[in-house]
Amino acid sequence: MLGFGSIGQGVLPLILRHIEIARDDITIVTAEPRGREVAAEYGIRFVEQAVTRDNLSELLSPLLRAGDFLLNLSVDVSSVALMKLCQERDVLYLDTVVEPWAGGYTDPALTPSQRSNYAMREEAVALREMARGGPTSITAHGANPGLVSHFVKQALLDIARDTGAPIAAPPPASDRAAWAKIAADLGVKVIHIAERDTQVADRPKKPGEFVNTWSVDGFVGEGCQPAELGWGTHEKALPADGHRHGFGCDAAIYLMRPGASTRVRTWTPLEGPFHGFLITHNESISIADYYTLRDADGRVLYRPTAHYAYHPCDDAVLSVHELAGKNWQMQPEKRLMTDEIVSGMDELGVLLCGHAKGAYWYGSRLTIGQARELVPHNNATSLQVTAAVLAGVIWAIENPRRGLVESDEMDHDRILEICRPYLGEVVGVYSDWTPLQDRGVLFPEEVDATDPWQFRNIRVA
Amino acid sequence: MLGFGSIGQGVLPLILRHIEIARDDITIVTAEPRGREVAAEYGIRFVEQAVTRDNLSELLSPLLRAGDFLLNLSVDVSSVALMKLCQERDVLYLDTVVEPWAGGYTDPALTPSQRSNYAMREEAVALREMARGGPTSITAHGANPGLVSHFVKQALLDIARDTGAPIAAPPPASDRAAWAKIAADLGVKVIHIAERDTQVADRPKKPGEFVNTWSVDGFVGEGCQPAELGWGTHEKALPADGHRHGFGCDAAIYLMRPGASTRVRTWTPLEGPFHGFLITHNESISIADYYTLRDADGRVLYRPTAHYAYHPCDDAVLSVHELAGKNWQMQPEKRLMTDEIVSGMDELGVLLCGHAKGAYWYGSRLTIGQARELVPHNNATSLQVTAAVLAGVIWAIENPRRGLVESDEMDHDRILEICRPYLGEVVGVYSDWTPLQDRGVLFPEEVDATDPWQFRNIRVA
Ligand SMILES: NC(=O)c1ccc[n+]([C@@H]2O[C@H](COP(=O)([O-])OP(=O)(O)OC[C@H]3O[C@@H](n4cnc5c(N)ncnc54)[C@H](O)[C@@H]3O)[C@@H](O)[C@H]2O)c1
Ligand SMILES: NC(=O)c1ccc[n+]([C@@H]2O[C@H](COP(=O)([O-])OP(=O)(O)OC[C@H]3O[C@@H](n4cnc5c(N)ncnc54)[C@H](O)[C@@H]3O)[C@@H](O)[C@H]2O)c1
Repeated sequence: MLGFGSIGQGVLPLILRHIEIARDDITIVTAEPRGREVAAEYGIRFVEQAVTRDNLSELLSPLLRAGDFLLNLSVDVSSVALMKLCQERDVLYLDTVVEPWAGGYTDPALTPSQRSNYAMREEAVALREMARGGPTSITAHGANPGLVSHFVKQALLDIARDTGAPIAAPPPASDRAAWAKIAADLGVKVIHIAERDTQVADRPKKPGEFVNTWSVDGFVGEGCQPAELGWGTHEKALPADGHRHGFGCDAAIYLMRPGASTRVRTWTPLEGPFHGFLITHNESISIADYYTLRDADGRVLYRPTAHYAYHPCDDAVLSVHELAGKNWQMQPEKRLMTDEIVSGMDELGVLLCGHAKGAYWYGSRLTIGQARELVPHNNATSLQVTAAVLAGVIWAIENPRRGLVESDEMDHDRILEICRPYLGEVVGVYSDWTPLQDRGVLFPEEVDATDPWQFRNIRVA
Repeated sequence: MLGFGSIGQGVLPLILRHIEIARDDITIVTAEPRGREVAAEYGIRFVEQAVTRDNLSELLSPLLRAGDFLLNLSVDVSSVALMKLCQERDVLYLDTVVEPWAGGYTDPALTPSQRSNYAMREEAVALREMARGGPTSITAHGANPGLVSHFVKQALLDIARDTGAPIAAPPPASDRAAWAKIAADLGVKVIHIAERDTQVADRPKKPGEFVNTWSVDGFVGEGCQPAELGWGTHEKALPADGHRHGFGCDAAIYLMRPGASTRVRTWTPLEGPFHGFLITHNESISIADYYTLRDADGRVLYRPTAHYAYHPCDDAVLSVHELAGKNWQMQPEKRLMTDEIVSGMDELGVLLCGHAKGAYWYGSRLTIGQARELVPHNNATSLQVTAAVLAGVIWAIENPRRGLVESDEMDHDRILEICRPYLGEVVGVYSDWTPLQDRGVLFPEEVDATDPWQFRNIRVA
């Protein structure tokens, strides 16, 4: 296991609970002492050594025999480099994001396009050929990216059922075109990953401190990447600051600004309408790509707009506000909230919009209390991730020769079956919410009243 | 005394400490039971009755004899109506904002210009003629508006001294042109009211709760008004959403959006650079108007850009974020933080920019601990206000026949003398900060590199 932060520590008890493996057969390699006592609690070998470009092979190869599993839960280590190594050594692999080498998210020598998740995903899926028939290598399978791709499938089936067009035998995950046709037929224009984290701590955020319920480095890294979104076929015009990449699958665009300064309107059942951050995520691109329907000549007929609309915990909202005020110069202190959380939940799901029933949110409501009762060393946010990591690991073991696989290509019902006990309440809720609701009351606003689901209506100007 | 919320309760002990008045001669009229126990503690008569358009004269006239003082610390009661009544009854008057009748800040039947502080101030200063030679009627004298106008004068004198052009005998406050010339000669282009409130409580903000260190209604009201700013002569272009009012003094513009959704870059000595909200305030207009230099034909030669750049306490930042997400539909619960504050300070001052020494911040740093030690029933925010209210009341008593007076027209040294014991550390600090610092590192940004002090550089896009 590479990396032993909030996700690594949280997944270990799940792995030991659900997978038959000798403790001796697990090694943790990580850059810091953080988590050493948790490793000791479970009797797991703990190697404190940062993986770098230079020592990658030397450090990891001796630990990886054919048939082993490399579970990458680190930051700052290139996912692509690790996947290559795993293919070479016939080792199963899973990560929860496509991670670049240290600094890759914020290297000013790279163009915003080169720093995008789009570019990183293209680099990862380019390994598909090389990995064909090789050991299963799951890219970007946590809660989101990851679990939410399975939520999308379940939501589509629910909407089909509830709009009188039930799908008796869902197509296999490998049949992209069939799934894209379901989404297109239902008229889904927009897919948000709509998340509201209400977890709060017993102590206030201090000035100069970045606080979050999961990796501070991970969140700051992605928050400073350009805002990115899968770009739907119903969109009438590219945003003024919107750009295509000019290479790759072309399913997504990026905005010429950091996601952490880009707000969008979204909705969850418990929070109601709110502003989330348009943080770039692998799933914004992979989902838009997966649900792209093409004609025989390869011309795009249908694609939904897909993006993240993230309301992190309140202290993280404040942390982002402070960080923006310092022009993205990182705060001197970081705090990953764990034991100090006193209440709240992570309401994480997908919001499918534009179909006959308006908007449909499908997802997990997991409170901090439930999370703590279910699995030690987790908060509500991490457990949604670690349950999905566990499910991905089990699926890879059950499907060991699939080569490179994205979340959308995995069996959603099997993954949901494994995750469900750890997701709290899993619910689907319809809503007549649209981003035009209550707009323009005090000030005129430039909206497209003819189609609520245009991105220009969703974006907060 | 009209209204007995955070400011009313906080000023009462100061008045009793500094002004010789029999407790029997004070009456509190307020809309709610809030503060009843504080009134009782000091043995002050407490009348629980809301003042309305209809009952104003009937309710208040019997309480106001010639020579009395009406101290207006309420929300939802028209300042203009009260000032008229006081002129009629020969009664001294002070308020801390120009307040409209209930709902006036957010009446969608009014245009944004009509709902602006500009319009409200015009209506107030239109009473100048009527009040000439009458009882002193101080409009908008709290911390800001109020105290900060005196900070500006002190800051100008400090900068003059430190740039080798000391002003031996400062002009009287009544000599606007002389003061405007000082600012123009020093090259001051921009005046921010730059405030960072770091007060935090022992309990987190709840979802659905608006939390602030002073009036929640007051802050939400002004936050939903259009963003407004005094518009300087150095500005090259009106913002795309900027509008002139087309009537009145023309010192200010408004943006076609609420201030609570408009962020600006600013700086204070302890916080460093940060994003504040461009909340409209009376002083943005009064200061810009006061420091307007005209030629013999009345043409404007010089005016600084002036506006508020407010970082309220962290819980208020979150409250504003939540409110914006609900399209300005007020949260069901409100909480004015008092006893639950555990630490923090209000760093409130003025930032004068564009002169030979760059930027100069002059203001007060008052911690919650200091505030509590100095005067009961105050937090750091309220004490900066209540000290200024006290000073205004004393000044009115000392200068009883001045008619209508704005803060800029009062003697800054006398006011500062009275306030200083209650302001914690009062400091002036130079800085080489500009809004261009650290810009455009990760993403290209449209800035005017030839003049850092253009509003387009200051505004957060
Ligand atoms: N898909 C999802 O839903 C999801 C959710 C949360 C986190 N994540 C991702 O999972 C990863 C881990 O998240 P976390 O919250 O546990 O992060 P964390 O910051 O808590 O921990 C990161 C870990 O990586 C280790 N590390 C850093 N540099 C290293 C190096 N060079 N070599 C080896 N180890 C190194 C650190 O020592 C630490 O143990 C991040 O990439 C994050 O983005 C994904
Ligand atoms: N200039 C400044 O620096 C400054 C700073 C803080 C507050 N203020 C202003 O001071 C005023 C009071 O602020 P606060 O924090 O004490 O507010 P608050 O909300 O704590 O209290 C408002 C008070 O007004 C009373 N009130 C409401 N409607 C009334 C009515 N119709 N008739 C009589 N009383 C009524 C309420 O009962 C309450 O006692 C507000 O207008 C606010 O904007 C100015």
